[in-house]
Amino acid sequence: MKIAIIGCGVIGAGWAARFLLNGFDVCVFDPSPEAADRMQRVLLYARASLPALYDRVLPPPGQLNYAPTTADAVTGADWVQESAPERLELKRALYAAIEPHLKDGAVLASSTSGFRPSELQKLCAAPERLIVAHPFNPVYLLPLVEIVGSDLTPAALKSHAAEILTSVGMHPLVLDREVDGFIGNRLQEAVWRETLWMVKDGIATTAQIDEAILHSFGLRWAQMGQFDSYRLGGGEAGIRHFLAQFGPSLAEPLTHLMDVPELDQALIERIAKQSDAQSNGRSIAQMEEARDASLVALIRALKAQRVGAGATVRTHEAGLTFGQDDEALVTTTRRVIPPTWTDANGHMNEAHYLEVASNATDALTESCGVTEEYIAAGRSHFTAESHIRYLSELHQGDEITVRTQVLFAQGKKTHLFHRILAPDGTLSATVEVMILHVDLATRAVCPPLPHVGAALERLAAAHATLPRPESAGNAIRDLRPKEVA
Amino acid sequence: MKIAIIGCGVIGAGWAARFLLNGFDVCVFDPSPEAADRMQRVLLYARASLPALYDRVLPPPGQLNYAPTTADAVTGADWVQESAPERLELKRALYAAIEPHLKDGAVLASSTSGFRPSELQKLCAAPERLIVAHPFNPVYLLPLVEIVGSDLTPAALKSHAAEILTSVGMHPLVLDREVDGFIGNRLQEAVWRETLWMVKDGIATTAQIDEAILHSFGLRWAQMGQFDSYRLGGGEAGIRHFLAQFGPSLAEPLTHLMDVPELDQALIERIAKQSDAQSNGRSIAQMEEARDASLVALIRALKAQRVGAGATVRTHEAGLTFGQDDEALVTTTRRVIPPTWTDANGHMNEAHYLEVASNATDALTESCGVTEEYIAAGRSHFTAESHIRYLSELHQGDEITVRTQVLFAQGKKTHLFHRILAPDGTLSATVEVMILHVDLATRAVCPPLPHVGAALERLAAAHATLPRPESAGNAIRDLRPKEVA
Repeated sequence: MKIAIIGCGVIGAGWAARFLLNGFDVCVFDPSPEAADRMQRVLLYARASLPALYDRVLPPPGQLNYAPTTADAVTGADWVQESAPERLELKRALYAAIEPHLKDGAVLASSTSGFRPSELQKLCAAPERLIVAHPFNPVYLLPLVEIVGSDLTPAALKSHAAEILTSVGMHPLVLDREVDGFIGNRLQEAVWRETLWMVKDGIATTAQIDEAILHSFGLRWAQMGQFDSYRLGGGEAGIRHFLAQFGPSLAEPLTHLMDVPELDQALIERIAKQSDAQSNGRSIAQMEEARDASLVALIRALKAQRVGAGATVRTHEAGLTFGQDDEALVTTTRRVIPPTWTDANGHMNEAHYLEVASNATDALTESCGVTEEYIAAGRSHFTAESHIRYLSELHQGDEITVRTQVLFAQGKKTHLFHRILAPDGTLSATVEVMILHVDLATRAVCPPLPHVGAALERLAAAHATLPRPESAGNAIRDLRPKEVA
Repeated sequence: MKIAIIGCGVIGAGWAARFLLNGFDVCVFDPSPEAADRMQRVLLYARASLPALYDRVLPPPGQLNYAPTTADAVTGADWVQESAPERLELKRALYAAIEPHLKDGAVLASSTSGFRPSELQKLCAAPERLIVAHPFNPVYLLPLVEIVGSDLTPAALKSHAAEILTSVGMHPLVLDREVDGFIGNRLQEAVWRETLWMVKDGIATTAQIDEAILHSFGLRWAQMGQFDSYRLGGGEAGIRHFLAQFGPSLAEPLTHLMDVPELDQALIERIAKQSDAQSNGRSIAQMEEARDASLVALIRALKAQRVGAGATVRTHEAGLTFGQDDEALVTTTRRVIPPTWTDANGHMNEAHYLEVASNATDALTESCGVTEEYIAAGRSHFTAESHIRYLSELHQGDEITVRTQVLFAQGKKTHLFHRILAPDGTLSATVEVMILHVDLATRAVCPPLPHVGAALERLAAAHATLPRPESAGNAIRDLRPKEVA
C-alpha cells in the first residue's frame, strides 16, 4: 500500500511516521524547503517511541520518498492525507491538483480541525471520496483519529478508512454526522477558554493551571473518561441520582464560558511570559522528547491494565508476530527496547533482561499449548530458578531477538536456555531457566496435560542434537581465597 | 498528630485513609449508620493502592477511632477536615459544635467544592482559622489539593496547611485569592457542560466521548498540562505566534458554552442509559478497583519519568526510610508489592523479583558511597551475573523486606546475596549477584574510589563472620540422565 502525504508540517510528518513504521510506503509532497528536515526530525522521534509501545516488533518500515509535485505524490496512492494550512483557497487548489491523479478506490482524507467535511467536499469534483480524518499530535503516539463525513459520504468509505487506520494502531472514532470542532477539540476548546479567563483574571498562572491538571483530572482521564468517572461519583446511589444533583450547579456561574475573553496583546503577553517561565529554559525539542517518553510510559502502563490507549496497543500487537525463522532454535521474542527501560547507568536495566526472558518463556510454552485458555482452566508454569549472565549492554531503540533452546523437558520439569541477541546478532545475555508445571488451584507441581508435555518433549528432543550452551549449568564463582572457601 | 474527620462520605473516608496510611491517628465522626462500613471499604481500597505507589514502605499506619460526637472527634485534633454535605445550615451547626473544642493552632479545613471560604468563614466564631482544602476523588491516590482562603486568612495558615498536606504525599495548590469552583472543578465543569450538549444533540454517546478523551488529551494531560502542550504546538515559531493564531477561533461557535443545556429528565435518562450500557454490567466496586489499579500504574510510570504526580510521589518517597534495623545483615529494601506486578498466574511476576533485588543492590552500594553524584561523576556498578531461586509466591499488598549479605568485595568485584523475606519473615527468594565496578566513560571495569572500596570491604569483613548461605554458588541442575550429561 502506498500513502501520499500532502503537507508535511508537524501533523503531516506525524502521519507519515506512523504509516512508515507500520510498513506502508509513503510519498511526501510539501513545497516548503524545511519539509524534509522536519520529516526527518519527526521520524527520529517516532522511531524512538512508537515501536517502544509494543512487546513485539512492528513490520519492516516502508520506503519514504519525496515527490516534486502533488501529482507525483498521489499517483498510485491508496490513501492521500492532506494536512495543509487551514485556508480554503489553498485546499481548493490542492484538491484540484490531486483529484485527476487519484486512483479508483483511493481515500482522500483531510487532517483539518477547522472545517466541516461538507465545506471541503464543495471544493472537490468527486465530493463523495473526501473524508476528514482528524488526528492528535503527536500523531505517531496518540491513538485517537476522528473520522467524519457529510451526508454525501458513503458509510462504506468511513468503515474502510477506520479499518486502514486501525491497521496502523489508531483508535478511529467514526462520527455519525458532522459537527464543528468534532469531539476532542470541542472539549479541549472549552477548557482552553476557561483557562484564558483564569489567566486574564489573575486567578492562576499557566504553571499553576498545568499543575492542577496533571495532579487531578489529567490522571483520571488517561484511564477513565468523564462519564465513567462521574458514574463512580454516584456510588451505589447510581448515575441517575448523581446527575440529578448536577442540575442546580448548571445554573451557577461556576464557569465564565457564557462569555469569551478577548485574546488581546496584553493577554498573549501575559500567557507567553508565564509559559516561558514555566518551561524553565527547556527547548521545544527537549520538551517533545520528555513528552514522548512519558506517553510511552503511560501507554505501556495502561497496556498492562488493558485500559484505553493500552488496550488499543494490545489489540494491534496481537496481530504482530516474531517472524518464526527457519533456524533450529525457536525465536521466542523480537522487540525494540523502550526508553522506559533505561536506568541510571544509561543502558537497559538488569530487571528487564529477566522481563524479556520471562516473556520468551511464555511465548515458548504458549506455542506448546500453555495458552490463555489453558491457564484460565487452571494449569500453568512457575519459574523455580533463573541464572542470568549479562555479556553486553543494550540500549533504548535496540531491536533484540531471543532464541530459545529446550535443554530438558520431562513431566513437571522444563529446562530452558534463552539467548538474547543484540541487533548485530552478537550474544548480549543468556538466561537459563528451570520452570515447573503447576496446578493453579493447589499451587502444587503436577505434570502438564499430554498435548503440552508432548510438545515440550518434542522440542527438547529436536534441540538435544544441537550443541549444549557452554555456560549452561554454571554457577556464580566463589571468589574468596581457596583456604577460606 | 491527631486528625479529626467530620463527615465520612467518599471524600471524608478518602481523607481519613490518606492520613492513616501516612501514620497519623484519625478520629471519625459521622452520624450515618453506614459511615463505619464506608470507612472500612475505602480503607481497604486505599491499602491496596496507596502504598503501592512507593518503592519504600510508608510509616506504620495510625490508629482509627470513631467518635460518638463532633466534640469528641475534634478534641485534641491538630487538623479538622469537614466533608459534610453542601448545605450551609448544616455546616453552620457543625462549626458551632467544633469551634469550642478546637485546640490552639489547629486547622479547620473544609472539603467544600461549592462554597467560597468567605461564605463558610461567616458561619464561624473565629473565621481566620477556617480554610478550604479541596481534594479530588479518590483522595488517597490523586495528589491535588486546592488550598483557598479569604482576605481574613493569614498567609501563614495556608503555608502551614500546605506543609501538612505535603507530608502525606499531596500536591497543594495554594490560591492567592478565592474564586468560585477553584481551578480543577471549573475546568472539569467546562468539559462537562460541553459534553452535555454533545449527548443532548446526539453528536456522540457517553461511551464515544469517554473513548475520545482516553485516546487523546487524557493521555496528554496526565503528563503535560494544557499550556505546556500548546507550547509544543507552536514549535520553533514560539508560544506567542501560536497564541496569535487562536484569536480567530475564539470568535467561532466551536463551543456551545455561551449557553447552558437544561439537564431535564429526558437528558438525564439518555445519559444514564448510555452510561449503563457503557459500564457493561461492571459494578461500581469493580470499576473503582480497576480505576485504582490504573492510577497506580500511571503514577508509577510517571514516577520513573519524574513527571507530574510521579514527581510528587518521588519527593514524598525520598523522605521514607527502610528502617535500618539492628541485626547483622543490611536491610536494603522494605516495600509493598503493587497490583501492577501481578501476572497471569496471580502472583508477583518473576521479573519483579529481580527488580526488587536490583533496587536492593542500588541501596547497598549507595550506602557505601555510590550516590547519584558519584554516578553523575562517571562511575557505577554493572551486574555481571544473577542467580535467582523462587521459593514461595508473593502477592499484591505483601510487605517484603530484603536483607543483604556481602559475600566478597575486593577491587572491582562485589559478590552479594539478597534474601527476599515474605511478610511473615519466611524466605521467599534468594538473589545472588556479582557486580562489577565500571568507568561509565569507557564502559570498562575499574576499581572503585577508595572510600567506596573501603566501605564495601568493611561490610564483607563484617558479614564473613556470619554463616554463608547454603545455596550460594549453586547452579541450575542438569536433569538429563547421567549417561547423556
